[in-house]
Amino acid sequence: MPTLSVFTDVPLAHKLEGSLLKAYRQDGHRNKTFLAYKVCMTNEGHPWVSLVVHKTRLQISGDPSLDYEYLPTVGMKSFIEASLELLFGKHSEAIKENRVGGVHTVGDSGAFQLGVQFLRTWCKHANVAYVISSQKEPHGLVFQDLGFKVYEYSIWDPEKLFMDPNVFLNVVEQIPRGCVLVIGNIMDCKFSHHQWEKCMALLKSKQIFPFFDIPCQGLHTGDLEEDTRILQYFVARGFEFFCSQSLSKNFGIYDEGVGTLVVVALNNQHLLRVLSQLKRFARALWLNPPTTGARIITSVLCNPALLGEWKQSLKAVAENIMLTKERVKEKLRLLGVPGSWDHITEHNGTHGYLGLNAQQVEFLVKKKHIYLPRNGRINFTCINASNIDYITQSISEAVFLTKNPKN
Amino acid sequence: MPTLSVFTDVPLAHKLEGSLLKAYRQDGHRNKTFLAYKVCMTNEGHPWVSLVVHKTRLQISGDPSLDYEYLPTVGMKSFIEASLELLFGKHSEAIKENRVGGVHTVGDSGAFQLGVQFLRTWCKHANVAYVISSQKEPHGLVFQDLGFKVYEYSIWDPEKLFMDPNVFLNVVEQIPRGCVLVIGNIMDCKFSHHQWEKCMALLKSKQIFPFFDIPCQGLHTGDLEEDTRILQYFVARGFEFFCSQSLSKNFGIYDEGVGTLVVVALNNQHLLRVLSQLKRFARALWLNPPTTGARIITSVLCNPALLGEWKQSLKAVAENIMLTKERVKEKLRLLGVPGSWDHITEHNGTHGYLGLNAQQVEFLVKKKHIYLPRNGRINFTCINASNIDYITQSISEAVFLTKNPKN
Repeated sequence: MPTLSVFTDVPLAHKLEGSLLKAYRQDGHRNKTFLAYKVCMTNEGHPWVSLVVHKTRLQISGDPSLDYEYLPTVGMKSFIEASLELLFGKHSEAIKENRVGGVHTVGDSGAFQLGVQFLRTWCKHANVAYVISSQKEPHGLVFQDLGFKVYEYSIWDPEKLFMDPNVFLNVVEQIPRGCVLVIGNIMDCKFSHHQWEKCMALLKSKQIFPFFDIPCQGLHTGDLEEDTRILQYFVARGFEFFCSQSLSKNFGIYDEGVGTLVVVALNNQHLLRVLSQLKRFARALWLNPPTTGARIITSVLCNPALLGEWKQSLKAVAENIMLTKERVKEKLRLLGVPGSWDHITEHNGTHGYLGLNAQQVEFLVKKKHIYLPRNGRINFTCINASNIDYITQSISEAVFLTKNPKN
Repeated sequence: MPTLSVFTDVPLAHKLEGSLLKAYRQDGHRNKTFLAYKVCMTNEGHPWVSLVVHKTRLQISGDPSLDYEYLPTVGMKSFIEASLELLFGKHSEAIKENRVGGVHTVGDSGAFQLGVQFLRTWCKHANVAYVISSQKEPHGLVFQDLGFKVYEYSIWDPEKLFMDPNVFLNVVEQIPRGCVLVIGNIMDCKFSHHQWEKCMALLKSKQIFPFFDIPCQGLHTGDLEEDTRILQYFVARGFEFFCSQSLSKNFGIYDEGVGTLVVVALNNQHLLRVLSQLKRFARALWLNPPTTGARIITSVLCNPALLGEWKQSLKAVAENIMLTKERVKEKLRLLGVPGSWDHITEHNGTHGYLGLNAQQVEFLVKKKHIYLPRNGRINFTCINASNIDYITQSISEAVFLTKNPKN
């Protein structure tokens, strides 16, 4: 008897990502290069792993005293405490006042999923989310799926080649009262004191709820404190907020999403109520978060010697990134490529804009087998001694060719 | 300036679980016993871990050739393939026909979350879920949170002390067309051939969508194939269904939720469409599932020697459970406790009903410091050489005291 499928009306989902990587993989050209990896790469072209992770992993797996029991739904307590201390500092007043807490999540996607589920249920008026960052953030989709109206803005000005504080200020001015503001990577945005003051006052008066994303603390400037300075402003000003904190990328534990949804409340009573509701959502999402990554990270964060080694490894990565950026700029200068390439070294972090237009990017992808996103934002750790000449030479050709349409 | 908290209206969430364990932990009595652990315990009172897991974990952590990169959103391909083969057998026709697939999830909670999100979006008419099992299942809550109306039934008859097939049949008769039927542990339900036939025909004609829960294959009877026999019936009859498959409990990897949401479709085309949509949901839930547990399990399942060791360890656990049940029954008989205690040995698995009434259970908890749920369903692996005498003696007292109200 032929049966009608219950799945008859289910369409094939639209592919969300990965087509650039797929094209790169299928490309047989010997000079092919992929500049869009999400994670920090080594000079040898492998995902970077902090050395301290390798030895901690080995030590943990050989420890006969460990058990492998379920974690509580909120997660590993020592991991959450160590994560919060990392984010807000050892002497944070807010931590001392017991108004900062967190739920251990499955990476930053898990943290956003959990936080947005909470907001949808308990902050019903906040059904609009504004997302502002220096890049396209993936978390807008989570808000959208859960019924929020989402508006996204980038602070990168592709004409003037800089991060424009006015974009941020304009967004803050126009957003409606009581909505959610997702604040991604805006560290390279140089606010004046006056601009900050204005921004904070507006957010406060309009009761905007900030939701920060800290995906790789320490990998931006190489300095853990510097990378979370913006959070300290908001804590000091008495804001309540959520923050997604991921520790996968800055330790190099990519195969375990290790995150925390951080909650800052006005007092302990509010904090406990929020955490109790978050626990309810986490229970339905994954019941118990995975342990391995959190265990490695906690071992490192709670051991001063290992912590020192980890900090050194972050600093080395940040220095290496800056060195690569300097080299790229210098090579473009020596090739006589017109224009200032200062924007490359003016911004920190693994990723940055090359400042190329769509036509130039297309030339690099189609003719030079160099794969990068259409907006020209690349991962500078994908550039190393063995491909830098080919890449800079190709950028040079792209710029010259598109300058003179006859060629 | 005092600020109004955005969390002012958030109430403290109602505690969902853990009060029995909490009471046990706070109890200072030297004979206190907890009989409600979810997982299989060793004779020494620790969560059981298959020995093969320890050595595989060590071997993996010392393997320099492994990378720790992100898994794809659908998860580890080799893990999914090995899991499906475990569930449906090496020579499954459905696997050969490419109409069986899966998404690697964060444990069984993750599998249900993912599956129910899909059903809510793509099977909109199916807004009612019936849950049937031998116990109270946690997954009803997930359906409820996502807007389903949920009805729950247990096949355990506390009067006649057996698993009643008629409860299942009655549910199947009364459920409305096109709804979801969650089928938990009903393995101890002895259907006649005729009853199965009737049940299948009804489910098919009413286009009921089954959602199975296989939380610990192999730990019920000690035989991997026997424990999934019910699935084979449904596959053979051409049903489409979902199945949450968890491999945390039967390997003893409790700290990593290792699961798969298994999809059985009528053909490959439908399967691919469903998987593509599930991937979309998984992307928003956790983006990449954690690797450690899946890597250990895949290493065991794909290595015939390790697989053999693991199967042996499951068999040993099942035999040990049956031995404990025999001993409990024998001791109760020797103590002259009235009634037949055959129901204890007539059912397989770690958990089973003692067949005590609420008053008897209360006596055990309050007077004897033996902690068990109100329905008297205990984990028999919590009983061992050092507590069996105290437990059976206490059960005896409970039965005698409640038989004669004057005492």
